[in-house]
Amino acid sequence: MNGLTHSEIITLLVALGVLLGTARLLGELARKLRQPAVIGELFAGILLGPTILGAVWPSAQGSLFPSEGPLPVSLHALTTVAIMLFLLVAGMEVDLSTIWRRRRAAMSVGVGGMVVPFVLAFPLAWLLPVTMDAGVHASELTFPLFFATAMAISALPVVAKILIDLQMFKSDIGMTIIAAAVFNDIVGWLVFALVLALMGRAGEGGPELWQTVTMTLVFAGVMLTLGRAAVDRALPWLHAHASVPGSVLGFAATGAALCAAFTEWLGVHAIFGAFIFGIALGDSRHLRQSTRETIDQFVSFIFAPLFFASIGLRVDFLQNFDLLLVLIVLVVATVGKVGGCVLFSRFTGFQRREAWAVAFGLNARGAMEIILGLLALEAGLIGERMFVALVVMALVTSMTSGSLMQRAIGRVKPVRFWDFAGPRQFVQAMSATDRDGAITELAAVASAVSKASLDAEVIAAAARARERLVSSGVGLGVAVPHARIPGLAQPIVVIGRARRGIDFDARDGQPARLIILLVTPLENAELQLRLLASVAHVCEDEAAVERLLSAANWTEFLAVLNENA
Amino acid sequence: MNGLTHSEIITLLVALGVLLGTARLLGELARKLRQPAVIGELFAGILLGPTILGAVWPSAQGSLFPSEGPLPVSLHALTTVAIMLFLLVAGMEVDLSTIWRRRRAAMSVGVGGMVVPFVLAFPLAWLLPVTMDAGVHASELTFPLFFATAMAISALPVVAKILIDLQMFKSDIGMTIIAAAVFNDIVGWLVFALVLALMGRAGEGGPELWQTVTMTLVFAGVMLTLGRAAVDRALPWLHAHASVPGSVLGFAATGAALCAAFTEWLGVHAIFGAFIFGIALGDSRHLRQSTRETIDQFVSFIFAPLFFASIGLRVDFLQNFDLLLVLIVLVVATVGKVGGCVLFSRFTGFQRREAWAVAFGLNARGAMEIILGLLALEAGLIGERMFVALVVMALVTSMTSGSLMQRAIGRVKPVRFWDFAGPRQFVQAMSATDRDGAITELAAVASAVSKASLDAEVIAAAARARERLVSSGVGLGVAVPHARIPGLAQPIVVIGRARRGIDFDARDGQPARLIILLVTPLENAELQLRLLASVAHVCEDEAAVERLLSAANWTEFLAVLNENA
Repeated sequence: MNGLTHSEIITLLVALGVLLGTARLLGELARKLRQPAVIGELFAGILLGPTILGAVWPSAQGSLFPSEGPLPVSLHALTTVAIMLFLLVAGMEVDLSTIWRRRRAAMSVGVGGMVVPFVLAFPLAWLLPVTMDAGVHASELTFPLFFATAMAISALPVVAKILIDLQMFKSDIGMTIIAAAVFNDIVGWLVFALVLALMGRAGEGGPELWQTVTMTLVFAGVMLTLGRAAVDRALPWLHAHASVPGSVLGFAATGAALCAAFTEWLGVHAIFGAFIFGIALGDSRHLRQSTRETIDQFVSFIFAPLFFASIGLRVDFLQNFDLLLVLIVLVVATVGKVGGCVLFSRFTGFQRREAWAVAFGLNARGAMEIILGLLALEAGLIGERMFVALVVMALVTSMTSGSLMQRAIGRVKPVRFWDFAGPRQFVQAMSATDRDGAITELAAVASAVSKASLDAEVIAAAARARERLVSSGVGLGVAVPHARIPGLAQPIVVIGRARRGIDFDARDGQPARLIILLVTPLENAELQLRLLASVAHVCEDEAAVERLLSAANWTEFLAVLNENA
Repeated sequence: MNGLTHSEIITLLVALGVLLGTARLLGELARKLRQPAVIGELFAGILLGPTILGAVWPSAQGSLFPSEGPLPVSLHALTTVAIMLFLLVAGMEVDLSTIWRRRRAAMSVGVGGMVVPFVLAFPLAWLLPVTMDAGVHASELTFPLFFATAMAISALPVVAKILIDLQMFKSDIGMTIIAAAVFNDIVGWLVFALVLALMGRAGEGGPELWQTVTMTLVFAGVMLTLGRAAVDRALPWLHAHASVPGSVLGFAATGAALCAAFTEWLGVHAIFGAFIFGIALGDSRHLRQSTRETIDQFVSFIFAPLFFASIGLRVDFLQNFDLLLVLIVLVVATVGKVGGCVLFSRFTGFQRREAWAVAFGLNARGAMEIILGLLALEAGLIGERMFVALVVMALVTSMTSGSLMQRAIGRVKPVRFWDFAGPRQFVQAMSATDRDGAITELAAVASAVSKASLDAEVIAAAARARERLVSSGVGLGVAVPHARIPGLAQPIVVIGRARRGIDFDARDGQPARLIILLVTPLENAELQLRLLASVAHVCEDEAAVERLLSAANWTEFLAVLNENA
């Protein structure tokens, strides 16, 4: 066998297309439900793997994803490259100077958030290896060490995403969380590397244990000092003498592959090398934003979904679902991490609410936990039941982390006015020619779509009364009449366009061509203000308003809004 | 076997790193020599394959790129994905509306450029199948048909690159060349699809020949009409309802994989489906430029180099180099293509010089020829000698195309002033404080680096004389003193920076902090003008000048220049 046959190529391409398409589809669905995309991507694999497709239609599952022959080898090669690139990107997100600036708080929270779960988890796994589903190659030392490490890590990418969503990334709390998560990540991977080294890879010609440990530490140390400086010098040279971004992309992928090969040879898994190289690369101020985004986007939206979906192909999630084990893992992970973080961050001087926010933020395990679990499963460190429990724990902690943080800190996601609009609330060309008529026209639409069958005249009267106090023409051809109605459950937003313009007495004298009626509950004054802020944010950009006015239909209108959000 | 072992993963990662790194390195080297990058990338494979590394150090070659076992399967899977994505990108570059606008000229030139080489090549291959190295699976019909097609195609990506370099892309000639190349590409691939269908893939459960041909035509027709319209509707929907660019990237890769699987199943090779899907996708005005660039860059600089380098791993280029065959192929290809194009483009109303430019432009075969040759080799249509001849022909035509076009049309590449400077001609901080002193200081540097040991005083006197006529202070703190010297072979450019500024009597009154001395041959007035234009082009941007002034060294200075070129 030295290549794929005609029919194997067909199967490979269909398998890749189906896997990637399903993963992206469910990933987007997860985002719609305000969850991390990785949850949908994992579910795509569960759907296409032995758990669901294999149970209801085994022959289709077996021919699309066979378990023997050249195809699983090909898929393994592709996912190895995918996970390596994913860890390169994860490493690129690490900002060493941030950790350094917030080192005191980060160390304290980071250590607390690792030590407490470690101390809880280690004896449990040591005393109950069977209940906890130790793998066939695990020893009395390596299994508890692995389990404790798995409980102690955090998930930098998920944590970063949640903080950005909450607009807290650059805040003091945000930076502390990020720094602590990076610290957790690096320590966690180092301990896991030690576990793999302890297990030995005898007979494969690799180095001895003490060599592995020493060389891993030396490698990490050298890469983060000399290697980092070398990358920082190489990039301007590439910019000056070679093509951009071509040379940098090639440099990044080559460096990641060679570092990955080196750490795999050391016995500490390929992805550790890619991760460390990613830190050295991402830390350079010479790495251009556009190059960073090209790598990030291609990897996050092509390779990462492929990798996470492929996980579901390996294990039957229903058959290996052990409720007791899942609960134990979930409780140990959450109590240990949240307890440790709250304790140690109070100690560092955070307020009570802030301490809880930090703790919930760091509790998200996300992709990192799943990767760690998969590696342990492949190495025979844990069984399939434990693997499923780790994946479930990673999903649950990631899904709850954001909303728990919000609740702790009292901060909420920004509201977007178009989340309350839709094609039925979009008047392409209004017939009204004056302000009162415009309000009447849009109020009628609002009344038609309201579930509580609101009276159009009530809405219009409230909006007109409000209009008499201060004009709602905000300039640049936009007006935002608004009304507050008692007992309303959900806000209603109606968007109308008037080609000829309607005078709304705006300060800049421009007649309104885009009129956005906001109907909000009387009881929630803040929501109205936040919707108004959302309109102002989009409509302060003249070019955006022009594009909104020339959008051919609701879908194009929505696309412009999303782009300017 | 259902996955890669520890040591196989190491080998795979090292092989990928070495292959990609070498390919990018030699690709950049080729660019330095003003050649297409693909030439360097191919050479990387020849270097690492049986031709060179295998000859001098067979054991290293064999263990890095073994020919049996899971590793060649993995590499084949990766390069299959790579070539599919490369054809997706090539398809995205096709602009159907351009072809439509210039359809008369393009059809005429396109048909002429295909028919003449076809008519020359077909009988030759029919009469001399042994000399021409027909493959073991070739028939009396399929081999001449393939060879004639191979002589008749053009290489859209290489042609487009040359036209952009010559700043002729948007000109009438440029658009005609592009349209004709697209026409050639599509017809060429259709005929090749027919050849593969004629060969049959019996015993693999595929469709009959007539089904293949019909379904291929229906597939292409449907994709370029209904499919194109569907993509054009899907993209705004994705922009409105899903993440950007994530959803579009996933959509592109999924669509390409599924279309590729479909055409592979039809028996006309996977890449045809990816190419057609790429046309449908790239044609949508809703595909954002940034998304296009993300796909383009990642594929062009990661996947394409991997694929082209992997070609060299398959064949020994020295052992299969058949000089007679190479010459025959080269002559038939060039005489046929250039002759046909000149004839038919004169006929369409092009001037003589323009007709030659069009013909030389379309003569470039580039990547497409190599891909076609590789597929034919894999299908047993041609032997290794013919494959090598096709690759050499593709390289030679691509390397000569640009300069022959330039000569025909009398157009030259834009000059960049920093191409004549260097670290030795860069004065970080000048000591002069007035205009005369500055000229003296820079003239001394020019004299020191000149090969003809020019007298510094001669240069300074000429520059000062020129300065008395009109000041060379061009504003924004930049001055460009210049001198023309009789008998000079190469221009000399010296760049100096004066922190405190030197009065050069600029119109905007700003003292010059960046002073660029141009020393050019007296005989070449145009070169001086073009160098001045190059300075003006960069230095009209205030931000760029500021960054030039704060660059820490020559490398950083050069990086800023290249970015603003």
